[in-house]
Amino acid sequence: LPKEILKCRYCGFESLGNRYYWRCPKCGKPLIITYEDFKAPTISELRRAVSKLSSIWVFSKWLPQVSDMVTLGEGLTPIVRKVLRGVNVYFKLDYLNPTGSFKDRGASLTISKVLSLGLRSVVEDSSGNAGVSITCYGVVAGLSVRVYAPKTSLRSKLDLIRALGGKVVETKDRYEANVKALNGLSENEVYVGHLWNPYFIEGLKTLAYELAIQLGKVLSNETYVLIPTSSGGNLLGCYKGFKEAIEGGVVIDLPKLIAIQAQSPAPIYEGFHNVKLNYEETTLADGLRVKNPPRLNEIINALRESRGGVIIVTDQEILRALKALLKMGFIVEPTSATAYAAFNKLVDDGVLGRGDNIVLILTGSGLKSINDLLRWCERQGSYT
Amino acid sequence: LPKEILKCRYCGFESLGNRYYWRCPKCGKPLIITYEDFKAPTISELRRAVSKLSSIWVFSKWLPQVSDMVTLGEGLTPIVRKVLRGVNVYFKLDYLNPTGSFKDRGASLTISKVLSLGLRSVVEDSSGNAGVSITCYGVVAGLSVRVYAPKTSLRSKLDLIRALGGKVVETKDRYEANVKALNGLSENEVYVGHLWNPYFIEGLKTLAYELAIQLGKVLSNETYVLIPTSSGGNLLGCYKGFKEAIEGGVVIDLPKLIAIQAQSPAPIYEGFHNVKLNYEETTLADGLRVKNPPRLNEIINALRESRGGVIIVTDQEILRALKALLKMGFIVEPTSATAYAAFNKLVDDGVLGRGDNIVLILTGSGLKSINDLLRWCERQGSYT
Repeated sequence: LPKEILKCRYCGFESLGNRYYWRCPKCGKPLIITYEDFKAPTISELRRAVSKLSSIWVFSKWLPQVSDMVTLGEGLTPIVRKVLRGVNVYFKLDYLNPTGSFKDRGASLTISKVLSLGLRSVVEDSSGNAGVSITCYGVVAGLSVRVYAPKTSLRSKLDLIRALGGKVVETKDRYEANVKALNGLSENEVYVGHLWNPYFIEGLKTLAYELAIQLGKVLSNETYVLIPTSSGGNLLGCYKGFKEAIEGGVVIDLPKLIAIQAQSPAPIYEGFHNVKLNYEETTLADGLRVKNPPRLNEIINALRESRGGVIIVTDQEILRALKALLKMGFIVEPTSATAYAAFNKLVDDGVLGRGDNIVLILTGSGLKSINDLLRWCERQGSYT
Repeated sequence: LPKEILKCRYCGFESLGNRYYWRCPKCGKPLIITYEDFKAPTISELRRAVSKLSSIWVFSKWLPQVSDMVTLGEGLTPIVRKVLRGVNVYFKLDYLNPTGSFKDRGASLTISKVLSLGLRSVVEDSSGNAGVSITCYGVVAGLSVRVYAPKTSLRSKLDLIRALGGKVVETKDRYEANVKALNGLSENEVYVGHLWNPYFIEGLKTLAYELAIQLGKVLSNETYVLIPTSSGGNLLGCYKGFKEAIEGGVVIDLPKLIAIQAQSPAPIYEGFHNVKLNYEETTLADGLRVKNPPRLNEIINALRESRGGVIIVTDQEILRALKALLKMGFIVEPTSATAYAAFNKLVDDGVLGRGDNIVLILTGSGLKSINDLLRWCERQGSYT
């Protein structure tokens, strides 16, 4: 098995995976993961692996080493193809993960690593889904878990964290959650916040592996992959996974990665286009509230290399998309619906047309907001 | 592709699958499905099929013929192994289906068939999950859907049916839901109720196919498979799927099928043991409320042939099991927790011991009752 190396691309710091770092201990920048003796996956290796139908750990040959796997059957999620407005749309149903969001891929790997290193307490900051996910895996591993979350989070998500046995600390907003999580860290606690955590991204790359076997030659540099993006973990994970799948000959070329953001905050849009927007903060896309993603540079580089970009969508567009997805049977939350709203924009703008291929990552389950769904569906006309 | 035959084992009626029957048009008994030229699946065929990671339709070679597949990525759910009290416990996470329950396997096949036959309106009776599932697939297919459900159903499930676009008719209890669904049937409507519907069972057999590839030789006549059972569709589907997997050489022998019921109603327990119980109706296991399963004889035969049986569990045991599952990270509903409660009984009674293998089917998601989970978890001591 390959052995992972935690690496800082800014100052050159390197460490074998036998100690947990959430950022570079020398210069404070985000870390990435590379491997000694990494052999990229081939198509037959991937096919054989997934036939076990168990979890992302079927890919353990290409993941960091752990002595304990904390798994709840995350990953290996289905894909559904539909022809919509002449376009081949591939929906990746990553909301069908154990706790109802794609975060489970990252949480499973992170908690497994933390447990393997003998650590006992983790701290996360989250607007909801990552908090649920880290809590769930953390509690299964016997760790103590504390989650800092904005008080505007969905009540049902915070209650679920509590039901699972996590401690919730409510904060003024998403920014304060991040600050307090870091400031409140005691000696024996480890910060696993997905904004920084390199293992989180490494778990998320399995999503690209799956798309590689599910879609094969459909993935080219003309294919669009739309990813709702807040701190960028999913996008960076996909970027990394696709690069490795290309190396192994499973995919021909890097698809166009498109980050989807709400009307505000939209730091990736602003950074990519070097502008400053002045919209009201989204009230619907509760998962897209990160204002200062620490990996902004990495994200912009991945978007540029893939010849992709950023799309922002308004709350009104999100609501319309949410209702449309529900009528297609995809029970997702507003944050996921941003991807479908962006797809419609691309067709409206003539960027996408008949015969084009597009992948929409549906990231979070609507069952977590089941008590709001009917209310949203019944809302008529404009949304403010 | 093999062609299915609808068959009545009571009067000998047979029909090719070009017309929909919910029961035998000659004698009124439940129908089963057989095939012309059925070739049972082999292990390599199953492995190749599931590597596509899409849906139960990877098994279409062994399913009824349809011209339109209505799929939301149902099936191909993960399995997680844990050693608990010395026993190898395999959790089949069938709650990770598109609408949050195993019913999606049956609904996908049923709605696909109904659509392929050119029918436009379906009627279902359900305590919740089947109603959500049939509505979701029905609406995707463009059908009109009416669901009769007891007014004691979880509000969140009924709201979800409405949000998806289904019509809910609330009834006094589960029995009245069934009676009214049948009485209210108009000329151009078709009754797809899972208590009778032979296609439902045919879709559910894919669960056994998956267990066959996931567990292989672990499945023997010493292995227990615990299935929460109301009208018996899942149990009969598993029975059929295992028989076919044995025919194809994927599984060696039929595992012991164990039906799990609540304290009341427990018609399968009563029928199997030929007794009459007198307990209070369950207030927790909302999915186990069928009092007169039309396929009772078939169920009892499957249990006997597999040398299995029936276990009943009390509400107090269900609540304890639900909390324990949550601490293991399995976010399920009380109906699913019955399986874990029954597992504990088998160990307590010395039936199961060190090194034994047991499969627990976790049937429904806890996210649908997300607003009740915390309340249940906080409930101390005894439950009434």
